[in-house]
Order: sequence, then C-alpha cells, then structure tokens
Amino acid sequence: MATVKDVAKEAQVSVATVSRVINHSPKASKNAIQAVNAAMKKLGYRPNAAARALVSQSTQTMGVLVGDVSDPFFGIMVKAIDTIATEQGKHLLIGNGYHSAKKERDIIELLISQGCEALVIHSKSLTAEELITFANEIPGLVLINRFIPEIADRCIALDNQKGSYLATDFLIKHGHQHIGYICSNHDIEDTEQRKAGYLQALKDHGLAHFESHIEYGTPDEEGGEQAMTKLLAKGLPLTAIATYNDYMAAGALAALEESNIEVPSRMSIIGFDNGLIAKYLHPKLTTVRYPIQKMAENAATLALKLANKEKPVTDTMMFVPTLVKRLSVIKR
Amino acid sequence: MATVKDVAKEAQVSVATVSRVINHSPKASKNAIQAVNAAMKKLGYRPNAAARALVSQSTQTMGVLVGDVSDPFFGIMVKAIDTIATEQGKHLLIGNGYHSAKKERDIIELLISQGCEALVIHSKSLTAEELITFANEIPGLVLINRFIPEIADRCIALDNQKGSYLATDFLIKHGHQHIGYICSNHDIEDTEQRKAGYLQALKDHGLAHFESHIEYGTPDEEGGEQAMTKLLAKGLPLTAIATYNDYMAAGALAALEESNIEVPSRMSIIGFDNGLIAKYLHPKLTTVRYPIQKMAENAATLALKLANKEKPVTDTMMFVPTLVKRLSVIKR
Repeated sequence: MATVKDVAKEAQVSVATVSRVINHSPKASKNAIQAVNAAMKKLGYRPNAAARALVSQSTQTMGVLVGDVSDPFFGIMVKAIDTIATEQGKHLLIGNGYHSAKKERDIIELLISQGCEALVIHSKSLTAEELITFANEIPGLVLINRFIPEIADRCIALDNQKGSYLATDFLIKHGHQHIGYICSNHDIEDTEQRKAGYLQALKDHGLAHFESHIEYGTPDEEGGEQAMTKLLAKGLPLTAIATYNDYMAAGALAALEESNIEVPSRMSIIGFDNGLIAKYLHPKLTTVRYPIQKMAENAATLALKLANKEKPVTDTMMFVPTLVKRLSVIKR
Repeated sequence: MATVKDVAKEAQVSVATVSRVINHSPKASKNAIQAVNAAMKKLGYRPNAAARALVSQSTQTMGVLVGDVSDPFFGIMVKAIDTIATEQGKHLLIGNGYHSAKKERDIIELLISQGCEALVIHSKSLTAEELITFANEIPGLVLINRFIPEIADRCIALDNQKGSYLATDFLIKHGHQHIGYICSNHDIEDTEQRKAGYLQALKDHGLAHFESHIEYGTPDEEGGEQAMTKLLAKGLPLTAIATYNDYMAAGALAALEESNIEVPSRMSIIGFDNGLIAKYLHPKLTTVRYPIQKMAENAATLALKLANKEKPVTDTMMFVPTLVKRLSVIKR
C-alpha cells in the first residue's frame, strides 16, 4: 500500500503539503492540489484518518466502551448512542471491555488514540482514580452506569440499590416472607448494590435474611437456570424470587417449568431491566425498568457537548428505576 | 491539545523524527528519543494512531460492519469476531449499517480511512458491483451472510432457502397441510430466500400456496406479534406457522397466548436462528440452527490472513442450517 511519503515523493512536494491537500487547507496552492491528487490517483492512495488527523485534529468519530455487545442491554445502549451520534454526523467506534481492567484500559487508550474526542464509557473494573485521570485528560469523556463523586458532572448513573429494594418490597407487600435472590457472580458494583437493595428491604420489613436463600450465576439465562436449580435443591420454603436481571429471571422460569412448579401460583418471580425479552416470557415478567435508552441518549449528548466545549444542558444524571407490573407476581 | 508539530518544535527535531520515536524506529537516535519524550511529557501529548500509522502503516484495529448491534444475532457475531481479533492483538471498530446503502457505504469508507486492513462486512443494501470494487481495493475484506459469485472466495454465507425449506418440510412431515408463514418486511435477500424455501417445500409436497397465509412485520418480537395477530384475524384453517426468525416466533407465541390458542396442541410454531432466546420460550422453540458464531470466526480468521497476505486455510464458506427439535411442533 502506498504511504503519504510515496505520494509526496511522486508529487515532488513535502508530506506537510500532502496533508494540506488532503485536509482541503486554504494554504494549499492550486499546483500542489493538482500534483498531489494526480499522485494519489496514480498510486491508489486513499487519504486515511491518520493523515487527516495529523493536521486537522478533528475526527468524525465518537467512542463507546461497553461490557459486552452480545448482551442485549449493551446493544440497546449502543443503538441509542449511535442515533445521537448520527444526528451530529459522527460515526461510532465501539469496544468491548468484558469487565476486565486491562481490556477496559486498552479500549479507552485505543479510542483516544483513534482521535475520538467524545467518549461514553461503561467501565466497571477500572479504579475511580484511573477514570478521574482519563476524565481530566479528555474533556468529552462521560461515564455511564457508574457514579464517582469527584466527577459527578460526568456521570450518568442508575440507583441500582433502589431498584432491587423496590422489587423486593413489592414481593413483601404481596405477602411473601420467604424470598430467594438470584444474584450475578460478576464482581462489579451493580452486583453488590442490587443485593444490598434486596437485603435492605427484608430488614426494613423485619424479615430475617439467610445466606442460603441467595444463589449466584453468570448474569444470563444459563446462570439464572443454574442458580434456580441450586435453590430448588435446598428444599427451602420459598414462595418468591427476586433476580439480578431479566435474563436470569428467564433462566429461573425455565428451571421452574422443568420442575413442574407453576409461576406465579406456586412461585412469584420478579426481574430487573425490563429488557425486550420481559414481555415475551411466560408468564409475562413483572420487573424493574432500567431506562438505559434515555440514559445512553443523555450520555451521548453530554459527551458531544463537552467535546465541542459547549455548555451542557442540565438534565437528569442519576436515574431511578420504576416497577413494571405484569403477570409473574401474585398475592400469597 | 498539542499536535505532533508542537512536539517537534519543542524538541527541536522534525515531525518525521517525532514519528520515528513514537514508533520505536531503530533509526531514532538516543538524543532524539530523550528530547521527544521530554517534549511529549511537557506538552501532555499523547501519541495517537494517526502519528503511528503515518510511518508504520500498520494498525491495531480490524473493522466490522453489522446491520444493527442491538439485535442479539449481530451481538453474537461481533463477539465471535472480537474473540479472534483479540487473540491476534487487534481491537475491533464496529459500525451499524441499518440495512441502508448510504450508511453501509459510509461505515466501510470510515473503517478503511481509520486504517483497518482486515474487514468483516455484513452488507445487505450495497450492490454486488460496489462490494466487488471494495473487495478489489482492500485485500482483507470478507463478506459475511452474502454470496457474490465473482468474489466467492471472500464470502462466508448461509443457505437461507435450505433453512426455511427444512423447517417447512419438518412441519409437513408432521402432518400439517395448512401452514402459515410470518415473514420479515425488510427488503433484503434473506427475506426472499427464506420465503422461497417455504414456498418450495409446499410445492415439492404438492400443497397449494396462498398469499393470504403469509403476513409481514419487522424482524423482531413486535413484528411477529403483529403478523400473528393479522393471520389470526383472517380465520384461516392454519395448524402450523413457519417464521422468519426466533424473535418473530416469540412474538407469535405471545399473540397466540393472548388469544388462548395453545402451542403446540392447537398450533405448531417453528423458528429460525436458534438464538439464545429459543430455549427460554414457552414452549421451548423448535427451530433451525444458524451457525453464526462459527461463520463469524471463519470470516474473522480469513480477513486477518488475507490482510497479512498469508495463504488462507481451506474452510467452510457456504454453511447449511440444521434442525433443532424442541417442544413447539407436534404431529397433527
């Protein structure tokens, strides 16, 4: 492949002149434009972002770090950000961090080095300190689903604990006293916060909590199925289950069906997220709404404003989950 | 933000020398390395991909164009490609084409201009001619889920028609004679091919086909629900439904449940894809396996080999769907 140097040599101009022509700089002379264009055509050279960025320092792209794009939760998030980016003539560059600190760091470095000035970052494994350093370096960096007090004006987050509290409280108010919890086994703050909400609701209603009532799995259908199977094997007097998310709830429903335990008549189930899947489960899943689409739109808008050094519009930064009542919970 | 020019000025060296230092070129002198590093530190300059690429012409990234990353089908595809890319020390840049020719073209141009030499492209709206031109220009470009005879060695595809044929044939062999079809309303070749497979199976078994037995919707849960509702409203003597994909099948199941029509005792349903959702539906969905993960792995491996000018290993290029029998189809 021809390089910018080859083009410069062919056109008998400097590399800087080639850059000026590529970037439509007013400093480029008519002769230079003709020579460079002819050379690029002859050599089959495609001016790339590299050559452009060196001079103009502006790019067409914004960057997104997600946990894992094969999780529909992140898919919805990415689509919402893409919609905002497209409206402003930007394309997205997307990377997966898989909740690994090294991966998350590598992706952020990559997105910065690719010239992204607006970044929406879903980081669960980097320390607050490291994220603060990145945020100070890149004015257009916004965190989503993470709250760091020192950079609160750059964080769009959800009150996870409140969400699980709401779900558990809803079960208790429906007469359930023996409530299990299907928990994620990912070591991230969401896990702790959601579990804490479950425990707090039990405590506020004067119900004892038993570690044996909690089982863990990967935060997907399979993990939920395995956790439910483990809970059933213990022979506990449970009448309701709160779950880490809708996918784990879907897995729990499958395990209960295999054991011929009808939902909701013998077991109530409540989810978390209100993902697309929730209303297509059987029975339709009562759950907690995670407004990820709106949150992602706000994060993208904020990141683009900050990258353009514009004053951001005041909008919600800390979101609150709300209950979505369907058919998987009944009165005991 | 400081530019590479500012660094060169501060270090009292040329831009080319700065590039050499950034790229750890053996041509950089010890003095130059010290001066450039000191200047970068003083100015807070972060060597970016632009500066690197200008000299080395090699990048850390490979590019992926998908339809819509919020569709779990594409999520699985992206994850499989990311796994292969990571093994080879590459990061992914991902763009959404939303089955629009303009969007698809813009994303491919962007990925090329960002320096991606290996590309996995899921394009449904660009013409074969335009894709052939791109493929000729970029040796590491591979198409997935599309077959163009002129560049057959660059295409990893699925026999869509065979998939729907298998599904419909399975229903007919279970004694069903009045079989509806829930079709996507996206104007892409997959739609036509899958519908053709359904029609061919009817024909081969000597069954009449009625246009009224086919309804259309967006290829997701909502589209499936609406199409099923429209089919039900016609009062046809249907006993089985073949569908465009598992999501439409999930929507059909929801519509049937609302109408108190039990599956499979009163209506058999068959999906397409065998996505994660299939075995968590009620009843568990009989469907056709789309081996997207394996296909995506092969496409990524091929693209990286071609970009490195290595000889590709011979592996499957045209995949064939297979039946996955679960509980949503019974003998009539």
